[in-house]
Amino acid sequence: MAEPKPMIIDGDEYSARRARLLGEVSDRELDGFITFSGLSTFYLTGFHFLPTERPAACLLLPEQPPILFLPHLEIEHVEATGVKADVYTYPEYPGTEHPMEHLVRIMDSLGIKGASWMVESLGYSSAEGYRGPKLDALLPDAHLALSPFIVEEMRMVKSPAEIDLIRESARWGNLAHTLLQEYCAPGQTENEVSLRASAEASQAMMKTLGRTYVPLGRAGASAGFRGQIGQNSALPHAVNINAVMQEGDGLVTGASAGVGGYGSELERTMFLGAPSAQQREYFEYMLQMQDAAFAAIRPGEPCSRVDAAVMRLFEKYDLADYWRHHTGHALGLLGHEAPFFDIGDDTLMRPGMVFSVEPGIYVPGIGGFRHSDTVVVTETGMDLLTYYPRDIDSLTMPIRD
Amino acid sequence: MAEPKPMIIDGDEYSARRARLLGEVSDRELDGFITFSGLSTFYLTGFHFLPTERPAACLLLPEQPPILFLPHLEIEHVEATGVKADVYTYPEYPGTEHPMEHLVRIMDSLGIKGASWMVESLGYSSAEGYRGPKLDALLPDAHLALSPFIVEEMRMVKSPAEIDLIRESARWGNLAHTLLQEYCAPGQTENEVSLRASAEASQAMMKTLGRTYVPLGRAGASAGFRGQIGQNSALPHAVNINAVMQEGDGLVTGASAGVGGYGSELERTMFLGAPSAQQREYFEYMLQMQDAAFAAIRPGEPCSRVDAAVMRLFEKYDLADYWRHHTGHALGLLGHEAPFFDIGDDTLMRPGMVFSVEPGIYVPGIGGFRHSDTVVVTETGMDLLTYYPRDIDSLTMPIRD
Repeated sequence: MAEPKPMIIDGDEYSARRARLLGEVSDRELDGFITFSGLSTFYLTGFHFLPTERPAACLLLPEQPPILFLPHLEIEHVEATGVKADVYTYPEYPGTEHPMEHLVRIMDSLGIKGASWMVESLGYSSAEGYRGPKLDALLPDAHLALSPFIVEEMRMVKSPAEIDLIRESARWGNLAHTLLQEYCAPGQTENEVSLRASAEASQAMMKTLGRTYVPLGRAGASAGFRGQIGQNSALPHAVNINAVMQEGDGLVTGASAGVGGYGSELERTMFLGAPSAQQREYFEYMLQMQDAAFAAIRPGEPCSRVDAAVMRLFEKYDLADYWRHHTGHALGLLGHEAPFFDIGDDTLMRPGMVFSVEPGIYVPGIGGFRHSDTVVVTETGMDLLTYYPRDIDSLTMPIRD
Repeated sequence: MAEPKPMIIDGDEYSARRARLLGEVSDRELDGFITFSGLSTFYLTGFHFLPTERPAACLLLPEQPPILFLPHLEIEHVEATGVKADVYTYPEYPGTEHPMEHLVRIMDSLGIKGASWMVESLGYSSAEGYRGPKLDALLPDAHLALSPFIVEEMRMVKSPAEIDLIRESARWGNLAHTLLQEYCAPGQTENEVSLRASAEASQAMMKTLGRTYVPLGRAGASAGFRGQIGQNSALPHAVNINAVMQEGDGLVTGASAGVGGYGSELERTMFLGAPSAQQREYFEYMLQMQDAAFAAIRPGEPCSRVDAAVMRLFEKYDLADYWRHHTGHALGLLGHEAPFFDIGDDTLMRPGMVFSVEPGIYVPGIGGFRHSDTVVVTETGMDLLTYYPRDIDSLTMPIRD
């Protein structure tokens, strides 16, 4: 009897990613690859951990399992994950021997201290109190070729398995958002509604998926407002102020869920009670802009094309004063990733790229108007991964007496 | 009638921080200071925002308000915060003119392009898809003195107002943890208990503090297990696996709350039903180690002294196989900050430093044993900021039939 498949990227895909990267390493006549990034290590090996002050590294060489260099406290964790790797640990940071010195000692013992390396960076970095020497000082005989964006570029095009995880995230974001909308009412606070919807959606998600669910990072589903309630919704990146909802408020929401390390993005503009004529007008402009962006998504065209389509409508309707940000960003392992639907980003769209599409109109004194959907570029255009209703009637909440 | 004081650092303290930093700038015969760090910008000005792919900078010059260089989407946000600053915005990243080029143009117009600067870094950095040129290439006539740790060092000693916020965080972490303990029972899942305790504690916290509560970052209180349930508690940095609780399980918890940008750390080892003789033995060793660490905290002594006191007990009781990490870390704006209670950290303890004290014993097949308390170094020793019961009886949950 086969075990149920967990909702994670499988080992073969991790091997294929490493092989692809090592192909580039070999094309540049280098011996191997070193990263100090937890994110890149996860992308290349499937080992997910909480980065702290303690440095970590992943070394790749052809025809060998990946080498993981980790703090000692990760030893059972890496074993429990089943990730196939040669694992070396150092006791602690800063410790009596700096972890970077320890790494060099291991490299020396493996006879790879003088090799030529493609490196994402010259050392570990963390805001959480890490300091340490750089590789170029530690490995004077090595050749180090800096390629800071090599893994970021690999991450841009998502595989079918990655898209499945993002799609699964979108399902549970949809539930969290549905509950969020149900619980909105005058007198409710932002946090009351958000905490209730998020907790219930997370429970339902985890009880539904059972042991096939592996969060690898953010666990569960969430939905909230980030302060974008009433007039405050005119701040595109407002912060939680625990606002009290009132009849007539416009609300700008956000929902997501973590699945196997991946996320999705769903945002909606909603109204508590019938929208005013003004609210209705800006809502319809925003919807037109999002439609124009969807229509502009096509593989082989530059990302800037999508933003340009939206900008044309800002001009057409004389809304430039209410423009605050570009049309969208890629997403996947991180909430924001390159490339961007931005007038200045000429990266060509490719099938498998996953983006948010979220043109926004922000009218001081009235409110913000923004939907965000997660889409995947296809061979001919795009598919929506989020599917929450977009029309104003579905997003208008009746006031109960 | 005076307005109720919000739970944030006040403007005078931000001014004093800037004056102190500019004193160091002047001591080094430099003209000003530049940071691209959102964390340092918050520490120096009180402006809190969500960093993304969009770069931001804060420039300080003597006798002037701080200069904030922000993406256009932050414009109403910075105005709404009341932070006193000269604000310049650029339209968007990457945009048709790179934001860094835009910054240089502003510096030129202000006549400060050729000044001498203390800089935390040579440019903005972000995992979320940012790329850009560095200051040294953009400002060939400027003198740039790299001081990457200057603000981190300022942050090490907390002011009375900062300690008050951490203390307030500890109160609500205590509530979240109390509820977490109440809701633990055989058959409950990790997430069920954690989501319920966190949501209820957050509600109580926000309804109690009302409009004096300003999260500036993480909002509300939370408590959970991060997978450390039963045998899995032997993984010091385990991840959420939505474990089902069973009688006899040891549990290792964590709780905190966000207040004005600051946090605290509270962790406990608990037992679902009477602990076994083995569990009791390791618990008592752990408690002794934490007591030894508390006793070793004294201003003027090196941080390593605290870890050394714990290490002596690991040796005395022959527990070296079960050692996984150092005794603690500073905390405040971030969950982990320098310095560390680590055998290799000779930073001298100073009154006002705030640390976690969390020696841990991890016994494969049996479980993990770790309390973490947040303490502040005083003139003569230390004070506890967390105050949850530490004794085994208080942390043993009876099994209800």
